[in-house]
Amino acid sequence: MTILVVGSVGLDNVETPSGKRIRTLGGACTYFATAASLYDQVSMVAVVGTDFPPEHIDFLKTRNIDLRGLEIVQGKTFFWAGRYGDDLNVAETLDTQLNVFADFRPSIPEDLRDAEYVFLANIDPDLQIALLQQCRAPRLTVLDSMNYWITSKRDSLARAISMVDVVLFNEAETKLFAAKSNILVAAKQILGMGPKALVIKRGEYGSILVTRGDGAAWALGECFFLTPAYPLERVIDPTGAGDTFAAGFMGYLARSDDLSIEALRRAVVHGTVVASFTVEDFSIDRLRTLTTRDIDERYQEFLKLTYFETLPGSDCECFRRPIS
Amino acid sequence: MTILVVGSVGLDNVETPSGKRIRTLGGACTYFATAASLYDQVSMVAVVGTDFPPEHIDFLKTRNIDLRGLEIVQGKTFFWAGRYGDDLNVAETLDTQLNVFADFRPSIPEDLRDAEYVFLANIDPDLQIALLQQCRAPRLTVLDSMNYWITSKRDSLARAISMVDVVLFNEAETKLFAAKSNILVAAKQILGMGPKALVIKRGEYGSILVTRGDGAAWALGECFFLTPAYPLERVIDPTGAGDTFAAGFMGYLARSDDLSIEALRRAVVHGTVVASFTVEDFSIDRLRTLTTRDIDERYQEFLKLTYFETLPGSDCECFRRPIS
Repeated sequence: MTILVVGSVGLDNVETPSGKRIRTLGGACTYFATAASLYDQVSMVAVVGTDFPPEHIDFLKTRNIDLRGLEIVQGKTFFWAGRYGDDLNVAETLDTQLNVFADFRPSIPEDLRDAEYVFLANIDPDLQIALLQQCRAPRLTVLDSMNYWITSKRDSLARAISMVDVVLFNEAETKLFAAKSNILVAAKQILGMGPKALVIKRGEYGSILVTRGDGAAWALGECFFLTPAYPLERVIDPTGAGDTFAAGFMGYLARSDDLSIEALRRAVVHGTVVASFTVEDFSIDRLRTLTTRDIDERYQEFLKLTYFETLPGSDCECFRRPIS
Repeated sequence: MTILVVGSVGLDNVETPSGKRIRTLGGACTYFATAASLYDQVSMVAVVGTDFPPEHIDFLKTRNIDLRGLEIVQGKTFFWAGRYGDDLNVAETLDTQLNVFADFRPSIPEDLRDAEYVFLANIDPDLQIALLQQCRAPRLTVLDSMNYWITSKRDSLARAISMVDVVLFNEAETKLFAAKSNILVAAKQILGMGPKALVIKRGEYGSILVTRGDGAAWALGECFFLTPAYPLERVIDPTGAGDTFAAGFMGYLARSDDLSIEALRRAVVHGTVVASFTVEDFSIDRLRTLTTRDIDERYQEFLKLTYFETLPGSDCECFRRPIS
C-alpha cells in the first residue's frame, strides 16, 4: 500500500547532553518518511527552500521515497533550533523560522490522491482538513498535532479530528485538548468526537491505544491497550521520536493492510520499537542504517521484555531458573 | 508459606481531591498484612499505643493475621497526616508523630523466626539489618525504604540491601540511591550491591523488574520486565499503593512458592493489580471487601490490556474485528 505523508521538512540545530548538531536534517515529514520507507512505498508532500542541501534529496531518493510532491521554492528552508537538558522528555525551543513553510498550501498531486494510508503530520489543522478533502478513498487517515494548535485553533482541530481514523497525541496534549486530568476520561471524550482510535504517547513511559467498544460499552481490556517504552541506557537525541513512532505504527498497518484491533496493537509496538532506534543518534542518523531485521529483532525482544504469561514458542529456559 | 511483615501500624489523616478521613487505619504494615492475607498466612511484627481502637485489632483478626508480634505499649499510636492535590503521585506530609513507634525495637517472636517469606516495610535500615539477622532460613526477603533513609542513612541502607533478595524502590528513589539519571544504569548499579532483584515502582506508569543475567551478560529481554499500571478512571486515595503492591508481589510468590523469574514477573502483575484496588477507596476500605476472585479477574483483564501477540486460549473475537 502507498503511504502518503504531509508535513515539514527542515534543518535543525539541536543540542542535547550528548552533543550538538548544526543545520542537520529534520522535520516531521522527513523523520516519518525515512522510517516508514522501511515498511512500504512512501510519497511525501512538503516544501523546502532553494538552500536545501541536494544530498538530503539524494538520500530520500535512495529510500525510494516518491518526491513528486516535494516543492522546492525560492527562499529558505524551515529552521528549528532546540535544546534538551537532563530531562530528555522536554525540548526547549530556541528559535523557529518558518521561512518557505509559512506559505505552504499543500496540494496533493493528482495521482497521489488515491493513496490508501495518509499521515497528516503536525501542521495547521485547517490545512489538514483541506488535505483530507483531497483524499479520494483512504483506508486509514492518521493525524498528529501539538499544544500550539490545541490552544490557538481548537475548533479547526476538533473538526480535523472528527474527519480522521486515528489521532496521535502525547499525554499532555490529550489532557489539554479534553480539559480532563484523568487520561482515560480524556481519551473517551476525544473518541466521542469521531475518530476510531487514539494513540497516547507517554515518552519513556510507553503508550496507550484506545479504541471504541462494541456499542456503548467500554470494556477496559478490549478498548484499551497499554504498553511500556523500550528501555534504553542512553538517549542521544529525542527529536523525531513521535514522528517515527507514527511511521512504525502506519508502516506496519500499511504493509499488512490489516486494520483489526489486534493489528493496531502490534502497530503500536512497531511504533515503540522504531522510535527507540531513532533516539539512539542525532537527526535521522540511526535510521540511515536501520534494517527491517533490526526492527523485527527488537520487536521480539520487546515481547520478552513485557510478557508474563507464556506465549506460543516462547519456552525460554532463562525465565524458568530461580533468581540468583 | 508464612509471610512475616515488620513495619508501621498507624492512624492517618488523609485529604485527597475526593474527600478526607480523620484517624483512619493506616501504616505500611497494616496495608501489607491486610492485602497479603488474601494470598497466604501472615504474621505481623509492629507496635501500637493504648489509644489504638480495638475494632482495628478485631478486623485484623478476621483476616486470620497472626498478631502475636503486635505489641501494645503505653502511649499514642504512630500518626501521619497528608494531603494529595490533583497530581495524585505526590503526597504532601502535613504532620508526622512517631509516638510509640519512635522507640520501636522490633524483635521477631521466637517461633516466627522460621518464616519463609519476610517483608521489611519502610523502617530504619539499622532495624532492618537486626531483623534480617533474626531470620533463620528465609526463602525470600524483600525490603522497602524511602528517600529519607537514602539521604540520612545511606551506608546502613546499602548494607541492608546487600542482605536481602529483593529491593523495592520507586523511580525517584532508584535514581537517588544510585546517583544516576538513567533508570537502567541505576538499576544495574543497585543489583551490583547484592540483591537478586529490584522492583522499580513508577506509580501510574507501571513498574520494572530487574534481575541479573546468567553471568556478566545483561540481555535486556531476560533481565528486565516492564509493565504498565492498571488504568483507573478515578483514584480516591493513593495511600498504601506501594505497600499493597508489595503484598500482591510477595503474596503471589509465597502462595506459589516459586522463585523463578517467570513467577517474579507474574508477582509484579499481582502487585500491580492489588495496588490498583487499594487506591479505589480511602484507607484499607477497598481491601476489606476484596476477594481472590476479584484479583484473578483483574489479572486476566490486565493480560488483555497489555498483550499484542495471541496467548493460548485468548482467541477473543473482539480483537479481530476492524476498528469502527
